Amino acid sequence: MIYFDPEKTREIMCRILKENGVNAESITHVTDSIIDASLKGIDTHGLALFPHYLEGFQLGRINKKPQFKIVKNNGSAKLIDADGAIGHHAGRFAMDFCIDMAAKSGTGCCAVKNSSHFGAAEYFTIYAAKHNMLGFAFTNTNSLVKAYNAVDPIFGTNPICFACPIEGEEPLSLDMATSVISWNQVRNCKEAGIELKDGCAYDENGKFTTNPNKAKCVRPIGDYKGFGLGMMVEILCSVLSGSEMGKDLMPMFHSDMTKKRGISHFFQAIDISKFTNANNFIKRMGEMVKFIRNMRPLEGQEVMVPGDPEKRRKIERLNSGIPMMQNVYNEFINISKDFENAVK
Amino acid sequence: MIYFDPEKTREIMCRILKENGVNAESITHVTDSIIDASLKGIDTHGLALFPHYLEGFQLGRINKKPQFKIVKNNGSAKLIDADGAIGHHAGRFAMDFCIDMAAKSGTGCCAVKNSSHFGAAEYFTIYAAKHNMLGFAFTNTNSLVKAYNAVDPIFGTNPICFACPIEGEEPLSLDMATSVISWNQVRNCKEAGIELKDGCAYDENGKFTTNPNKAKCVRPIGDYKGFGLGMMVEILCSVLSGSEMGKDLMPMFHSDMTKKRGISHFFQAIDISKFTNANNFIKRMGEMVKFIRNMRPLEGQEVMVPGDPEKRRKIERLNSGIPMMQNVYNEFINISKDFENAVK
Repeated sequence: MIYFDPEKTREIMCRILKENGVNAESITHVTDSIIDASLKGIDTHGLALFPHYLEGFQLGRINKKPQFKIVKNNGSAKLIDADGAIGHHAGRFAMDFCIDMAAKSGTGCCAVKNSSHFGAAEYFTIYAAKHNMLGFAFTNTNSLVKAYNAVDPIFGTNPICFACPIEGEEPLSLDMATSVISWNQVRNCKEAGIELKDGCAYDENGKFTTNPNKAKCVRPIGDYKGFGLGMMVEILCSVLSGSEMGKDLMPMFHSDMTKKRGISHFFQAIDISKFTNANNFIKRMGEMVKFIRNMRPLEGQEVMVPGDPEKRRKIERLNSGIPMMQNVYNEFINISKDFENAVK
Repeated sequence: MIYFDPEKTREIMCRILKENGVNAESITHVTDSIIDASLKGIDTHGLALFPHYLEGFQLGRINKKPQFKIVKNNGSAKLIDADGAIGHHAGRFAMDFCIDMAAKSGTGCCAVKNSSHFGAAEYFTIYAAKHNMLGFAFTNTNSLVKAYNAVDPIFGTNPICFACPIEGEEPLSLDMATSVISWNQVRNCKEAGIELKDGCAYDENGKFTTNPNKAKCVRPIGDYKGFGLGMMVEILCSVLSGSEMGKDLMPMFHSDMTKKRGISHFFQAIDISKFTNANNFIKRMGEMVKFIRNMRPLEGQEVMVPGDPEKRRKIERLNSGIPMMQNVYNEFINISKDFENAVK
């Protein structure tokens, strides 16, 4: 395992993206998001994706200089055409509108079409929470989750993400796929040559398999319930924005990098102060998470709230640096030898 | 099993509630909701609750003549004090505001405090969907779902409900507790003297139990994910409205019927036409549900979308009448012999 210094890594990534003609805002948001995800241990959405995003910019999947268009403009709701932007930039652009609208009328939401992979959804919701708002973010993805009672998948792992402020610490963040495991966990097990946990993935006949090479799709949480939640996310993102559904989207990997995928998202902010005293809300949230963390634990376990493991890992990794597998490190060095200087 | 005619049953319930001094809107909404729930086979939220609600009106838990107050009034967000109303009335009042706000600005949401049990959440979201909107409804409940890694529960079964219009049929409706089973399923197994399914409920030590008499709480869907979703619902309802959290609420049954419970809700409507052509949306939804229903099924199974089993049962029960267990029928007859005339 190699350890990367987050700030040095960020600088080099920024320079490379700039040399490739990527606009400043796309650079800021994609590097901020992947460094933060890696620090928090969300490695599937962290630095490991940088080579993939860079290739997307270079080959045309992602637009280096997108021109956003507000296609529908209402007081509390907008439809944004992201012009093939990187999702991190599109999402941040949309969430800024959500926050502005919420500050005026109480809530605001944006559907975003013609976007691309947006990384860790909490990048947008935590930003809203830091404005004393509740933040929500959703995205569709290509189909990977088995439809209930069916053999095949139709919707993606369509995540639900929610954040809100807490007194005295970083915001609460729930950022979850609506499936039992993510597709990246299947890919990781395949690479590492290890079995999947039972009851998480299905083969081509819709039967459970623990063999990652035979896995064709994953299981929704709560079976028909998670399937329904994934459908809700799909409707909010693709049907509401007039975009393609998960089943018609190209996979993220091993697909034509010159083609746009047409991912769609949905964002919302709710201004706490329009409902209740924001300071009281934040104080009560502090009491709530304290109460939960102090609940009687199961033997050998620790009771946490969503986002706690990530907060803890961020403290560790700010100190140790961001761990990187040798094969990912090699990809970075292939991009630029400068990354040798990012090693801690 | 006794079968009740829905219309005759509704008439008698309305008359009894009126004789008890309940206001007209509360009567309309609670009877509409429970008849519809019973027709759809959502028996835990149907007619079986009528004796409980009536007792609530009579003993003071539920306010017969609530005076709603708009505590916070913003363009797209309101906080409503329901003055102890029955949740069905409070929720419908709130959803009307959500729809009005959404028609103007694209979306609208209401937090509702000082309410009571609101029955089947889809009563509100399907209403929004019939206005060509996406409808959302959430409520908190007393604590019944085990916190992840803890021995005890903190949040209730805190449901998530979503509906939207579909071409040529009743709206799509996802109405789900964030737990694997509902608490009413535990109660029903206890009454019927049958075991619970394994992996659904926990005893007082936080260990799985199939004995309904030993069950103290139920399992969240996807474990820490469902726990997080329940927490999100709790925050939207109680913390945002400045109400008591699930852990501090009285249980619905076997508790002081003279005391208000202080349940809180959150509702939202999103106007489809503010994002995309509503007719196209509705047409695409028709295509989506058709596609799903025609997916290759697992052997012996049928692929459905959320709400399909309920739609089917409604057709059956409009014909057969609403089935009622003998003990529930006895409760109805104890309230009024007139219910003998409601038998089909």
